[in-house]
Amino acid sequence: MHLSLEDINRLNKRSRANLINSVSGIKSANLIGSIDAEGRTNLSIVSSVVHLGSHPPLIGYIQRPRGAERHTYENILATKQYTLNAIHSEIIRPAHQTSARYAREQSEFEQTGLTKEWLNGFSAPFVKEAYVKMAMQLIEIIPIPSNDTELVIGEIQNLYFPSNIYKPDGHLAIYEANTVGICGLDTYLKTEKITRLSYAKPNETLKEI
Amino acid sequence: MHLSLEDINRLNKRSRANLINSVSGIKSANLIGSIDAEGRTNLSIVSSVVHLGSHPPLIGYIQRPRGAERHTYENILATKQYTLNAIHSEIIRPAHQTSARYAREQSEFEQTGLTKEWLNGFSAPFVKEAYVKMAMQLIEIIPIPSNDTELVIGEIQNLYFPSNIYKPDGHLAIYEANTVGICGLDTYLKTEKITRLSYAKPNETLKEI
Repeated sequence: MHLSLEDINRLNKRSRANLINSVSGIKSANLIGSIDAEGRTNLSIVSSVVHLGSHPPLIGYIQRPRGAERHTYENILATKQYTLNAIHSEIIRPAHQTSARYAREQSEFEQTGLTKEWLNGFSAPFVKEAYVKMAMQLIEIIPIPSNDTELVIGEIQNLYFPSNIYKPDGHLAIYEANTVGICGLDTYLKTEKITRLSYAKPNETLKEI
Repeated sequence: MHLSLEDINRLNKRSRANLINSVSGIKSANLIGSIDAEGRTNLSIVSSVVHLGSHPPLIGYIQRPRGAERHTYENILATKQYTLNAIHSEIIRPAHQTSARYAREQSEFEQTGLTKEWLNGFSAPFVKEAYVKMAMQLIEIIPIPSNDTELVIGEIQNLYFPSNIYKPDGHLAIYEANTVGICGLDTYLKTEKITRLSYAKPNETLKEI
């Protein structure tokens, strides 16, 4: 089946969003924890987290433009700190529910039943139920003129994970901690390892490692 | 287990790359097809593709800085066009092999056995074996000062996929086309649907759809 740009632009808004959110591939599934200057916490689901580099350890996510309220973004601007918490198969429903438009006075923690956790004096709340979690310091926000979105970049300050998924060479087997992925806007996927392959070199056969 | 930024910075380069590439979550797995002004084709694997927006349909990827050669990036700068091809479980090995450092004269198509495909007069080559593929027009390149990477943004010109994975509401079930994900630098994951959930609203129970 073939759709041109014209065909895509002719789709209704919801169908187009469903389609284009699906085509880029499996997306990561994280919860961003944040807090405002008055101590009100916020939790929001994000599927656009992307690895930017390892030294320094930088992670970005795409901030969508929204006419209305953007509590997480405002909190990050105000405090410069936030947390990233990997969504796993046992917390899919409350994680998805954080995307409902709650008022600022309603913390998504209370509304969804996920538990706030405070670690090592970090200002932003973590999700207690998550297995892989990161304390993030805001580094820069880069405007994307093409569609009025922004790339929000943070540096990992602290990293928490179950020791049994940490391999001797540094690889973190997040798929062994039931970490899920997202397809499109609303479909949650479990993941399972197929293979791990050696570093590729010309004229050398790949080995399973 | 807990690692601080200091702990992370003390890891050796390879362990740190393995770790930080794993922590952001499941990554999408795509092949970028491109061609230079002399007609030499190039194919490279990318795990940093990210959805930017649906109207216009924009997709980005992170271009790493590399002292040495960056054929794909140079080709995109020269021709403004490239293709994105979803990696599925039957082409993991040749897809991974495209990350070997071949000379410009050696096309990764020939070196890995993946097949060039030309569709609707588009200048850049597609991967015939892929099920989901996109013709991309370069829109803008945004420098990321924090670590000297760039966000390369393209607009979908044409979209190809098997009709049986296209749902009535626009959702594309890429997990039904054996699309794989990546964890870290080298680990390929299969994906399977757990659930699809309704649009979340405050005080409303989520439904499986």
